[in-house]
Amino acid sequence: MIICKVIGNVWATRKEETLNGLKLMIVRRIDISSDAEHESFVAVDCVGAGIGEPVLVTTGSSARKALSIEDSPVDAAIVGIIDGSEG
Amino acid sequence: MIICKVIGNVWATRKEETLNGLKLMIVRRIDISSDAEHESFVAVDCVGAGIGEPVLVTTGSSARKALSIEDSPVDAAIVGIIDGSEG
Amino acid sequence: MIICKVIGNVWATRKEETLNGLKLMIVRRIDISSDAEHESFVAVDCVGAGIGEPVLVTTGSSARKALSIEDSPVDAAIVGIIDGSEG
Amino acid sequence: MIICKVIGNVWATRKEETLNGLKLMIVRRIDISSDAEHESFVAVDCVGAGIGEPVLVTTGSSARKALSIEDSPVDAAIVGIIDGSEG
Amino acid sequence: MIICKVIGNVWATRKEETLNGLKLMIVRRIDISSDAEHESFVAVDCVGAGIGEPVLVTTGSSARKALSIEDSPVDAAIVGIIDGSEG
Repeated sequence: MIICKVIGNVWATRKEETLNGLKLMIVRRIDISSDAEHESFVAVDCVGAGIGEPVLVTTGSSARKALSIEDSPVDAAIVGIIDGSEG
Repeated sequence: MIICKVIGNVWATRKEETLNGLKLMIVRRIDISSDAEHESFVAVDCVGAGIGEPVLVTTGSSARKALSIEDSPVDAAIVGIIDGSEG
Repeated sequence: MIICKVIGNVWATRKEETLNGLKLMIVRRIDISSDAEHESFVAVDCVGAGIGEPVLVTTGSSARKALSIEDSPVDAAIVGIIDGSEG
Repeated sequence: MIICKVIGNVWATRKEETLNGLKLMIVRRIDISSDAEHESFVAVDCVGAGIGEPVLVTTGSSARKALSIEDSPVDAAIVGIIDGSEG
Repeated sequence: MIICKVIGNVWATRKEETLNGLKLMIVRRIDISSDAEHESFVAVDCVGAGIGEPVLVTTGSSARKALSIEDSPVDAAIVGIIDGSEG
C-alpha cells in the first residue's frame, strides 16, 4: 500500500455500469522523507476520506477486494485514513 | 485508475481472436498539476470515448472486468469519460 | 497494451515445462511521439509476428489469457500485429 | 520479491474491515550495490519483523497469499526476515 | 518476462511457511543494448540456475504458475536459463 493525500475528486456521467455510486477521489502519493512530486491518480474511496487527509491506498487486483462488487474495473482504492506514523 | 486523454486509435488485422470487435484507442496519461510528457499506450474503449476527450483508464487485471469477454488478453480499458474534477 | 517493435528472439533449453513450444521474442516499447529508448523484454508470440514488425503487447496476468495453456508462467504476450494507427 | 528495510509503522483507526489486526509497517527498498534512495511504502508484516531489520517483501496479488484472510485489500507483505545474502 | 543475470542468493530463517525449500536468488535485469544499471531483486529459482547465468524471469501473479505450491507469496520466478539470443 502507499501513503497518499486526497487532493480532489472527479466525476463522470458516462462510465462503466459497476462504477455507479462509487466515490472517485484524486490522490497523490506522499513520502515522509522526500519532497519528490508524484503523479496524481484516481482511487475509489471505501472509508469516507476527505480532501487533505493522508490515506492508505491499495493498488492492482487487491483494490477490488475492498469493494462490495468485486467485478468492478477498479485498480486503486482508499482503504484507511492514517492517524499517525512512526519512523 | 489514471486520467488520460484519447489521442488516436490503432488497428490490427492479425490479432488474438477475442480482441475482435474491440475498439483499441491510443491514450496518454495527463496530470492536472504537472506538464510531464507521458508515454502513450493502448486501451480498449468500453464507453464510447472520442479523440481529445479526458477519460478514466483502469489497468492490469481490473481492466478485464470492464469487458463482456473476461478471458480476453486486455490490460487497459477506458471505463469513464470525465466531465469534471475538483482539487 | 503497449506498442512494441519485435527486435529479436531468445532460446532456452532448460526451462519451465509449460514454456515448451512457445516462441519467445525480444521486444522493445516504441512511442510515436517520443524518441525515448526503452528497455527490451521478452514476450510470447501468439500471432506469428516477425522481426521488425510493430506489435501490440499485453503484460501481467492478462498475457496468460492469450495462451492455450493458461497455467504457464508468462507475463507478456504479443497479441496483435499493428497495421496502422491514427493520431 | 524485493529486499527492504523496516523503517517504521503506521496506524489507522478508520480502515477497511479486513485490515483489522494486521501490522502495517513502513518499509523502504534497499539495493546492496547502489545508494539510490527509494520511496517508502506500507507492507503488512507476516513474520514478526522489527524496525531496522532487512526483510523480503512480496507485492501485488501474491502478497494476499501470505495472509490468513485472502480477501483483504493488501498489495504488499513482509514474508521473510533476511539473515544473510551472498553475491 | 525480463532477462536477468543471477548475482547471488539470500537466506531467511524466519519466513512465510510456504517459502520453505524454495531457492531465493538475487537477480539483476540486463539489457543487451544498454548499460543502464538496474536494481536487484529476489526471484525463486525453478530451473537450477547458477550464479552468473543469464536467465528468464517472470514477475507478478504469473510467477506463482511456476511453483508447485501455487499459494506461495512469490512475485518473481526464474523460469528459464538463456542459451542464446538473436537481434
